[in-house]
Amino acid sequence: MTIEPAKGIGDYDPKTWELRSFHDHRQKFLDGGDTPRDYLERCLEVIDRLEPEVKAWAYLNTEPARKAADEATKRYKDGKPLSLVDGMPIGIKDLIETADMPTEYNSDLFRGNQPIRDAASVYFLRKGGAVILGKTVTITFGGGDPAETRNPFDLRRTPGGSSSGTCAGVGSTMIPCGLGTHGRGSTIRPSSFCGVYGLKGTFGALNRQGSYSAAETMDHLGVIAGSLEDMWIVARYISEHAGGDPGHPGLYGGRLPPAPRKPERLIVLETAGWAETDDETREQFNGVLKQLEAAGVELFTRKDDPAIETYETETARSPEMWRNLYRFEMRFPMYQYLDYDADRIPPRLKKGVEEGRGLTQEEYRQALVRREHWRNMHDELANRCDGMITLASPGPGPIGMDQGSAIYNEASSIIGMPALSLPLLKVEDMPTGVQLQGMRHRDEALVAVARWMCPQILGNG
Amino acid sequence: MTIEPAKGIGDYDPKTWELRSFHDHRQKFLDGGDTPRDYLERCLEVIDRLEPEVKAWAYLNTEPARKAADEATKRYKDGKPLSLVDGMPIGIKDLIETADMPTEYNSDLFRGNQPIRDAASVYFLRKGGAVILGKTVTITFGGGDPAETRNPFDLRRTPGGSSSGTCAGVGSTMIPCGLGTHGRGSTIRPSSFCGVYGLKGTFGALNRQGSYSAAETMDHLGVIAGSLEDMWIVARYISEHAGGDPGHPGLYGGRLPPAPRKPERLIVLETAGWAETDDETREQFNGVLKQLEAAGVELFTRKDDPAIETYETETARSPEMWRNLYRFEMRFPMYQYLDYDADRIPPRLKKGVEEGRGLTQEEYRQALVRREHWRNMHDELANRCDGMITLASPGPGPIGMDQGSAIYNEASSIIGMPALSLPLLKVEDMPTGVQLQGMRHRDEALVAVARWMCPQILGNG
Repeated sequence: MTIEPAKGIGDYDPKTWELRSFHDHRQKFLDGGDTPRDYLERCLEVIDRLEPEVKAWAYLNTEPARKAADEATKRYKDGKPLSLVDGMPIGIKDLIETADMPTEYNSDLFRGNQPIRDAASVYFLRKGGAVILGKTVTITFGGGDPAETRNPFDLRRTPGGSSSGTCAGVGSTMIPCGLGTHGRGSTIRPSSFCGVYGLKGTFGALNRQGSYSAAETMDHLGVIAGSLEDMWIVARYISEHAGGDPGHPGLYGGRLPPAPRKPERLIVLETAGWAETDDETREQFNGVLKQLEAAGVELFTRKDDPAIETYETETARSPEMWRNLYRFEMRFPMYQYLDYDADRIPPRLKKGVEEGRGLTQEEYRQALVRREHWRNMHDELANRCDGMITLASPGPGPIGMDQGSAIYNEASSIIGMPALSLPLLKVEDMPTGVQLQGMRHRDEALVAVARWMCPQILGNG
Repeated sequence: MTIEPAKGIGDYDPKTWELRSFHDHRQKFLDGGDTPRDYLERCLEVIDRLEPEVKAWAYLNTEPARKAADEATKRYKDGKPLSLVDGMPIGIKDLIETADMPTEYNSDLFRGNQPIRDAASVYFLRKGGAVILGKTVTITFGGGDPAETRNPFDLRRTPGGSSSGTCAGVGSTMIPCGLGTHGRGSTIRPSSFCGVYGLKGTFGALNRQGSYSAAETMDHLGVIAGSLEDMWIVARYISEHAGGDPGHPGLYGGRLPPAPRKPERLIVLETAGWAETDDETREQFNGVLKQLEAAGVELFTRKDDPAIETYETETARSPEMWRNLYRFEMRFPMYQYLDYDADRIPPRLKKGVEEGRGLTQEEYRQALVRREHWRNMHDELANRCDGMITLASPGPGPIGMDQGSAIYNEASSIIGMPALSLPLLKVEDMPTGVQLQGMRHRDEALVAVARWMCPQILGNG
């Protein structure tokens, strides 16, 4: 397979591709062996080299970021960093408000829009010393129309969406971490395509106030990083300071990443995605399962347990369920935006709005009831295992700028269970993610399993 | 007691004061005996006369309203009204976004702010032909600092807040109906002080997207009207078309108001408010209870049932509970607004933000858990009766511009049960409301009880 990677990236291999991490530099910042400013400059060098091809950024706030990095440098030098995220360069998906940069939702309706406030997550990251480097490209309003970002490992391919810029930026080592959002597949899918660690936590675990939500009951703040450790540290930091969504207890767990833990039992889910999955991806995924079994992990599938079969059968309806929830919930503000200027709403988004006009409140109520049933089924299964494993996408990011299939992500978005994409596969010489799903509010336990599993599979543990 | 009513209002008496209703004009619109345009002009005449003293309006959109009323006039003439709200003049609290009028939150941070969209409720009311007449004055961000609106029945007194303008406008017959919001007492309290019918429905029953929420898990859209019938029709219309809040089933019930229904059993709640209530208000309220008993309604109090005593004792902690929820949830966007320009945040609101800075996520989690306990207790009690009755405020609106006590409203805001304020009392020659509270999702049953009770108490049934 020919690939056309961005300049200097070369052939992709998850075993050797070194993502950028931050947590392991903090000691050097304290010792004087490195500084947050130098760290930032290394990020900026990669951005300078790759951005013309990758187009990950909607806005770069370079000089203010340098100033923030200098302040962090001084704090570390004084032995007084503000938090575990002090000095960390972070990219913010442009569906999330920022007080010092425009927030445009990649929409012609909002070009130059300058909020007077930061989203809750951004606000507290800043207070903790994080270097808010810029806004990353999003699909317009997180909808289905192509955006400009390209996959750094093959410029002909999509990075996935809608958190396109954040995932392409982290995958190409421009930054160690960024924020995304996720209402269907918008964190897990591009994490898969860009070969990064992506967390969509338990629904409501990370405060998303100040970000655009198309589907309020399925949207999550996503944390995307070059390491599981930075991913966890940033997520936990946001929850501690900004809280979860109002009414939710927020992410449970410690400030530092949990110790790796070998799972005893995993449930293997096919989901409706298996039918869409190409042979090479299936083969790679089955290889991972074999490695897990060889390591002594018990695996269960729909063939082993009628409860898994029932869950698989029921959640195979996720495309219809997701649509009914999304289309009812997206009506505000999309009806209003269409009335304001329909010409500036891109075609697929517009089509989705139009197709949803016939939905009744009664149909929406039925979907809410069914979701409760799904949640109960999921809780029952989750009690029997240490996690569920499946693919994060039906394969690598497809050629073209369509954002790719979210078929493996819909059920977890609907149910609100935590999900992780892990960069463990190479398919067509491109990154493809393995997905772990866990029990609601047990995000930390899932990360512990991932910390055991990744080195186990990549052979670098 | 001397009162200083606005011009032409005269002495207040709930038995004789004629609020403006709309639903009973629709037949005349169809017959040609009246028109929505003439109806609107009668509203405008009252506004012309009273507005200089009452100051209910932040913005009046008179000419576009006349145009909308003319269009409604034509539709009725053609026998084709769009909906039950077609032609109804409605005032919109200025915490709620409007595409054709500024939305300022009564804040110096947002003077002249022009959204490109309507809130979901306003959008669909317009689609149903409602005449969106203007924006009504709110307390700044719904917080505690005085606003300019005065009580039409005594200009020296507060109309209550934060839905000050809507309630003063409906109470003084400027309009038949308006929207408010309610996070603590912001619909029920000013409804009590202004002698109008106010509904704070089951939490989530009426879509509030596009309105400002200080406390997301306690904020409700409120419907304030001159009759129970218009109140119900508007609430039900909003739910059918805009839906409830995302994830909520919305208001249950028919499009038309439910038939009056005599309750068999009511629980009388003292709440923490009883201790703050003056003798005249207590006496008036006890008079209502005597009338109900005389009509054959069984009343139960904390003295009759240990479960009521437990509920009363526990919910007497509502000021502390409310504060812990509010102060954690208001942090977004208030921290950001203070950072942006603290001088433009009024003093009480600022004080509330500062006092909440020490609250931890763990304290918030404890409050969420305790709320579930309150909800369960309330559900149990609600199952044993046809509603709960208490005061809507500790008395009439006090002299001065402080918005008055919300002590009778906190528990229902926290729990999210439906609550009504009914203009049944005259205390110090001023309106004071009786409150009915019901079971979650049974708003319609509560309105049925209110439709029986009001004429029963006022002697005009």
